[in-house]
Amino acid sequence: MTSKTIQKLPRGIFAASLTPLKSNLSIDTELMLEHCHSLLENGCDGLVIFGTTGEANSFSVRERIDLLDALLAGGLPPHKLLIGTGCCAFPDSVELTKHAVKNDAGGVLVLPPFYYKNISDEGIFHAFDRLIQEIKDERLKVYLYHFPKMAVISFSQALIRRMVETFPGIIIGMKDSTGDFENMKSNHNTFSGFDVYAGTEQLLSDILQIDAAGCVSASLNLTSRLAARVKNAFPGEESQALQNKLNAIRKEFEKHPMIPALKQMMARKTGHISWTNLRPPLVSLDEPESRALEEALDALQFSNYCSF
Amino acid sequence: MTSKTIQKLPRGIFAASLTPLKSNLSIDTELMLEHCHSLLENGCDGLVIFGTTGEANSFSVRERIDLLDALLAGGLPPHKLLIGTGCCAFPDSVELTKHAVKNDAGGVLVLPPFYYKNISDEGIFHAFDRLIQEIKDERLKVYLYHFPKMAVISFSQALIRRMVETFPGIIIGMKDSTGDFENMKSNHNTFSGFDVYAGTEQLLSDILQIDAAGCVSASLNLTSRLAARVKNAFPGEESQALQNKLNAIRKEFEKHPMIPALKQMMARKTGHISWTNLRPPLVSLDEPESRALEEALDALQFSNYCSF
Repeated sequence: MTSKTIQKLPRGIFAASLTPLKSNLSIDTELMLEHCHSLLENGCDGLVIFGTTGEANSFSVRERIDLLDALLAGGLPPHKLLIGTGCCAFPDSVELTKHAVKNDAGGVLVLPPFYYKNISDEGIFHAFDRLIQEIKDERLKVYLYHFPKMAVISFSQALIRRMVETFPGIIIGMKDSTGDFENMKSNHNTFSGFDVYAGTEQLLSDILQIDAAGCVSASLNLTSRLAARVKNAFPGEESQALQNKLNAIRKEFEKHPMIPALKQMMARKTGHISWTNLRPPLVSLDEPESRALEEALDALQFSNYCSF
Repeated sequence: MTSKTIQKLPRGIFAASLTPLKSNLSIDTELMLEHCHSLLENGCDGLVIFGTTGEANSFSVRERIDLLDALLAGGLPPHKLLIGTGCCAFPDSVELTKHAVKNDAGGVLVLPPFYYKNISDEGIFHAFDRLIQEIKDERLKVYLYHFPKMAVISFSQALIRRMVETFPGIIIGMKDSTGDFENMKSNHNTFSGFDVYAGTEQLLSDILQIDAAGCVSASLNLTSRLAARVKNAFPGEESQALQNKLNAIRKEFEKHPMIPALKQMMARKTGHISWTNLRPPLVSLDEPESRALEEALDALQFSNYCSF
């Protein structure tokens, strides 16, 4: 289909980009583009577009395709983008994946179909098998999106093995949002060439220690610059001190609904009101909650560490 | 918009229709239409199209719209149809709901947005509030789809109260798939004019006893005629004996993944191979499982009670 050399997705620090919305809850494409460029200039090695943090599953296929088109037209480098494409409906996953691959995205981040529960490994395998058969493009690079707390469906190690062995060079990595470092380490050590990204920057030093692929995280929308300092100073005391600060900031966000809390702080830090809007069923922090977050972050001198 | 009198959704027995698929996993529309007509001729007072049993969330918006168009063109009476329209993505729910309402569907069965977990009542309320505002059609009749085991998100009684009070004549009922009859009874008794449909025909006699709206169930794809006999003979010994038989049959299906088990038996009973196909992540029963189900049903003289 193409003679271009496809660059591999970078290793390192990925913000799972938030998606700014206008007051009518349509995507604020201009602000999104500005934000993505800013993240790449402020420590991010790559970006996830349409992950959980980006409210991916709250948008239609059309909206998702249109946004990616706009981001690429606006100059974002496709090989630095990991595009969320996993939906409940197989034709939706196919359409989004085809579109991302056609545009030379660095990879697609694929949730298992997540409506039905108590699904067998066999059923998840079939979903990926059919998706890959449908795409039929050598550029396809699939990263498994492992987030059992949200998707409820999860990838067992036996299933990962079967998929990696069946689709070498296609299923090549995972975003692991379990927070379970032992699981990440085990997958990193077990599957050769399998790129494991931790779903939180609290594990950045641990990931660097074992030379796994990197971190993809929601809070990196605000802390990517600090995370890059951790990475650049690694290993050593300075890096550890910065990691401690990164962890302390993350812990404050974790005390609140994560996406609303991050959008609230984005609005405060950038002055763009579009950051406060959320698609249902997510709701904004109330005023006391918002104030509590801000005060806690102030106590950590967040302004000195925030990317904005 | 229209001067037609809109008929209310019937009470009674509703099969949550299975969706037959061709070998390429596209919908077998002709067989679906035949099945739906057959269900209405065999004891069903109405049908749910695109519920959990119908693998609704495994189909794109386009597929769902096209199927409903075909079913209506094929003569199914719209007021007997309760159409599943609740998706994760707000624009998808809006598009499906508009389409169903425009076609005078008896009602729409709406899941809460189900990707995000730990969602507040406020967030679910907002999702329904915005949906209703977007539809702006006096024909809109919303039935809440309460299925916490599958959607994980659930409707608290406080939330139901708020929605019923805020949207009288619009949010008018619920399919309750919890199996918790006390919850159904409580909602039936608490909210005047609120139509409660139990998600299993095992509760049919109980529902008839309290004069709630009816039952919507997966297994009614095969047992609607028997369920109608329970209803027609109610109350009394004959009805109770038939209810016991209905329960015994249902219990055999519950020992297996429900949708694959039902599709397997549909294929055996009708000879249509399209019934054996499932969209990922669902998988067919294996041969021993299938045989075990068939033997257990034979022991219950299922052939004498099956609708086909």
